[in-house]
Amino acid sequence: MATKTLDNLFYDTLRDIYYAERKILKSLPKMARAAQAPELKAAFEKHEAQTEGQIERLQQVFEIIGKAARGKTCDAIEGILAEGEEIMEEYEGNPALDAGLLAAAQAVEHYEITRYGTLKRWATVLGLKDAARLLEQTLEEESQTDEDLTTIADAAVNAEALKPAA
Amino acid sequence: MATKTLDNLFYDTLRDIYYAERKILKSLPKMARAAQAPELKAAFEKHEAQTEGQIERLQQVFEIIGKAARGKTCDAIEGILAEGEEIMEEYEGNPALDAGLLAAAQAVEHYEITRYGTLKRWATVLGLKDAARLLEQTLEEESQTDEDLTTIADAAVNAEALKPAA
Repeated sequence: MATKTLDNLFYDTLRDIYYAERKILKSLPKMARAAQAPELKAAFEKHEAQTEGQIERLQQVFEIIGKAARGKTCDAIEGILAEGEEIMEEYEGNPALDAGLLAAAQAVEHYEITRYGTLKRWATVLGLKDAARLLEQTLEEESQTDEDLTTIADAAVNAEALKPAA
Repeated sequence: MATKTLDNLFYDTLRDIYYAERKILKSLPKMARAAQAPELKAAFEKHEAQTEGQIERLQQVFEIIGKAARGKTCDAIEGILAEGEEIMEEYEGNPALDAGLLAAAQAVEHYEITRYGTLKRWATVLGLKDAARLLEQTLEEESQTDEDLTTIADAAVNAEALKPAA
């Protein structure tokens, strides 16, 4: 068996997040439809457009390393998104739905933040400057999305979740 | 069916992270045994001791809200830990093992960071000051652990992963 070095790990992890991003892209419209607050709906829609750009960047990174852009089942995102689905079912029509959806979206963001942070550092160690730059761009977008979600939570969603349904 | 407000969501999410922490506690000794670099091994052992304290804090929070400390299956941590197991199997004896383990541990940290961040904000909105303080303490520990892991990665592990096995 060939020795597995950072090249292999970089490629495997790239495939993991590529799978994850495409799963997220499919789930965002569902989350946007479920969201009650217009600002949360808008945040999910904005992130859907952003995710498309992030997938394109990943395809560029695959090209840089001369490998096929192919996903690899990511158990982590399956589990994280399953929890989001559970919230949508269990809290449908309830005041705390948006707070739960928002928390689920932040769990998704944090998974992306950790993966892109790792991949960016590995790209740098591997001397893949252009790849590191692309990964850094996405990392910044994900961190900003996470901050925006916190702002929305503090501004309205969490207080709204206290109220009994009208 | 009773209306579900932030109280319910807080309790459900507390149960989710309680389940997750106990799963993490079980997996940390395995990760410490698998790690090759002594500093990574030590970091996992330190976090194991910390996790015990974090579980106790969660039990205190359950007490504050007058509910039984009971976990609720957390699909997210199941998936995140499954990816760590996969790394241990696929990279055993290979130079990139530690870099992969470290990345898996950071994915765990980020899940905890997002959940404790959310729970702390909800505790504040619910007027549970003591609970918010306990959750904040754990949040700070998790963020510090994540930073420590990045330092270890930059200092040694990622460069080591470049080398073919001796």
